[in-house]
Amino acid sequence: MYTSDQLIKFCGAIFRKIGCSEAQAEIAAKTLVSADLRGVDSHGVARLSGYVRLWEIGRVNTDPNIRIVHETPSTAVVDGDSGLGLVVGPSAMKTAIAKAANVGTGWVAVKNSNHFGIAGFHAMMALEKDMIGVAMTNASPLVAPTFSIERMLGTNPIAIAIPAGNQPPFVLDMATTTAANGKLEILMRKGAEAPLGWIQDAEGTQITDAEGVKKGGALLPLGGDREHSSNKGYGLSAMVDILTGVLSGANYGPWVPPFVSYAEPSTDPVGDGIGHFFGAMRVDAFRPANEFKKHMDQWIERFRSAKPIKGIERVLIPGDPERENEAIRKESGIPIVEQVVDDLQALSTRFSVPL
Amino acid sequence: MYTSDQLIKFCGAIFRKIGCSEAQAEIAAKTLVSADLRGVDSHGVARLSGYVRLWEIGRVNTDPNIRIVHETPSTAVVDGDSGLGLVVGPSAMKTAIAKAANVGTGWVAVKNSNHFGIAGFHAMMALEKDMIGVAMTNASPLVAPTFSIERMLGTNPIAIAIPAGNQPPFVLDMATTTAANGKLEILMRKGAEAPLGWIQDAEGTQITDAEGVKKGGALLPLGGDREHSSNKGYGLSAMVDILTGVLSGANYGPWVPPFVSYAEPSTDPVGDGIGHFFGAMRVDAFRPANEFKKHMDQWIERFRSAKPIKGIERVLIPGDPERENEAIRKESGIPIVEQVVDDLQALSTRFSVPL
Repeated sequence: MYTSDQLIKFCGAIFRKIGCSEAQAEIAAKTLVSADLRGVDSHGVARLSGYVRLWEIGRVNTDPNIRIVHETPSTAVVDGDSGLGLVVGPSAMKTAIAKAANVGTGWVAVKNSNHFGIAGFHAMMALEKDMIGVAMTNASPLVAPTFSIERMLGTNPIAIAIPAGNQPPFVLDMATTTAANGKLEILMRKGAEAPLGWIQDAEGTQITDAEGVKKGGALLPLGGDREHSSNKGYGLSAMVDILTGVLSGANYGPWVPPFVSYAEPSTDPVGDGIGHFFGAMRVDAFRPANEFKKHMDQWIERFRSAKPIKGIERVLIPGDPERENEAIRKESGIPIVEQVVDDLQALSTRFSVPL
Repeated sequence: MYTSDQLIKFCGAIFRKIGCSEAQAEIAAKTLVSADLRGVDSHGVARLSGYVRLWEIGRVNTDPNIRIVHETPSTAVVDGDSGLGLVVGPSAMKTAIAKAANVGTGWVAVKNSNHFGIAGFHAMMALEKDMIGVAMTNASPLVAPTFSIERMLGTNPIAIAIPAGNQPPFVLDMATTTAANGKLEILMRKGAEAPLGWIQDAEGTQITDAEGVKKGGALLPLGGDREHSSNKGYGLSAMVDILTGVLSGANYGPWVPPFVSYAEPSTDPVGDGIGHFFGAMRVDAFRPANEFKKHMDQWIERFRSAKPIKGIERVLIPGDPERENEAIRKESGIPIVEQVVDDLQALSTRFSVPL
């Protein structure tokens, strides 16, 4: 068990060792560890060594000049200068929030970035300003469009955070695939099978082999198959790809550079790095914030008290599981699987940073 | 077979007979028949008599004072004054487009409206201005959240229309359920069964009875069950409900008034009518429009040429099926099922309007 403070301190020290400024290292570490706190273990410290490897081969710039390259009162395009998405993301989200403060909403497309951790963290930055936050990113191609055997899209998440009054906020943070990568990793560690509807093999047949993607198959868009409207999951993933990649000037579709350092990015890129898209909407740009929050409380209370199916305790509100994880892990610490502890210890030794 | 001009003329005449101005009747008719043209038969002239019945019982105001009640440079809330959504929608979308022309993006939440036809029609209004269009609406509760047996949400669609250059635009228009209502109606007419994952019965068990919703069951959110991430479909539907209902001051969740005139709206409403949410983003608020369109063409060409699963002709781009329907139906006319023809003929007789 580790406390989040321990992990943030450790990650921050590693990020400084690879060249981040004190301020950027702290932001990167907080963004990264927010995933472990919220129970999204696949996107937290488990990825730290991956970021370090990307820096080693020159694909991550730890001293980036993050800058606005185009803007209007409610929009901007940010060039992340190959920085860590963990740093570029919060910077761009701040721009979105500042624009919303001025003209009601702010929308920022980002190019030339890298993996940004969990989408929900960025969206939630808007909450303390009484704003609705939106965050999306494209990602390495692992997902086949409906009817295809080619891996054309990433798990391309959509996050939206909506403030409430007495109730905790509504926080939807979802991959646009049936199964998130993290769930597959858990199955692979256990040697367990995946349900049908998560993965297809290289010929496009649905399979239960959790290693199927590694063997040339693909993740399936939310819906699973055409009969269950996988075209909708594909459409949402495509929307994310276009808003994050095409609108910003980043790579898109099969050209999105892989997160893993051993896979080469395209030699014929169509843009710069990976892309994100952020939004902030001031609640009081629509109706008085206290009125909105009162109704959000009522929305949440009504849905939480919806009659459950027999044998099920209660209906959940998006964000409930992650918030409950966070409460437990703040109290009792964050469990880290052995493989990841080994990984962190190797970094500790290499950079002479105590874990 | 009917031509779209015939149907628009007929619907326009009926809308005038129930009190719409010439201009509003024309907009309403065009919006409605766009669904028939695009092959979304459930949302087109099949609903005309439904709108008339809502007018008869005083739930639709055919001479509405549609007005902005709150605004910032990039946002507005529009009060639809109980007007036809077919008229309120295009009016609010125009406001979003005007705001985007000024400050880059425009976002309009609408309260006190009614059913607005197909979401895609409204989103597509942005295309000719080189803008990305967004449209959502909440709707009568027919959908159970994951783990619940209560009908709490509508089929709450999300539409996004994105312009391209030489390629036709990308148009995603999707209900946030596994199955749209229209597909169920087709099965019910045929007496056929639905696949598992579309519907649950009153106890929350997945069933194949296409009449299951009528018998006290519910539609399932996109994903179908928890193992296939129905929590994501539920989350998206909830997001739509909040942006359209809570943000605007309309009803939300189980309080959304039913479309059918024989079902009573809640006697204890939490807002006014049903809600919509519209967005417009100027492409050149992010990057030069010609550059964006060149990359959209490349995006579309690459995805359309993605390797298909053996036996499947090709991979589709969101909007392809509807556009192909439109081309065929513009050429050969719109087929209308007998039941709907009878319905239209009854209106024809009643209002002395030739069909």
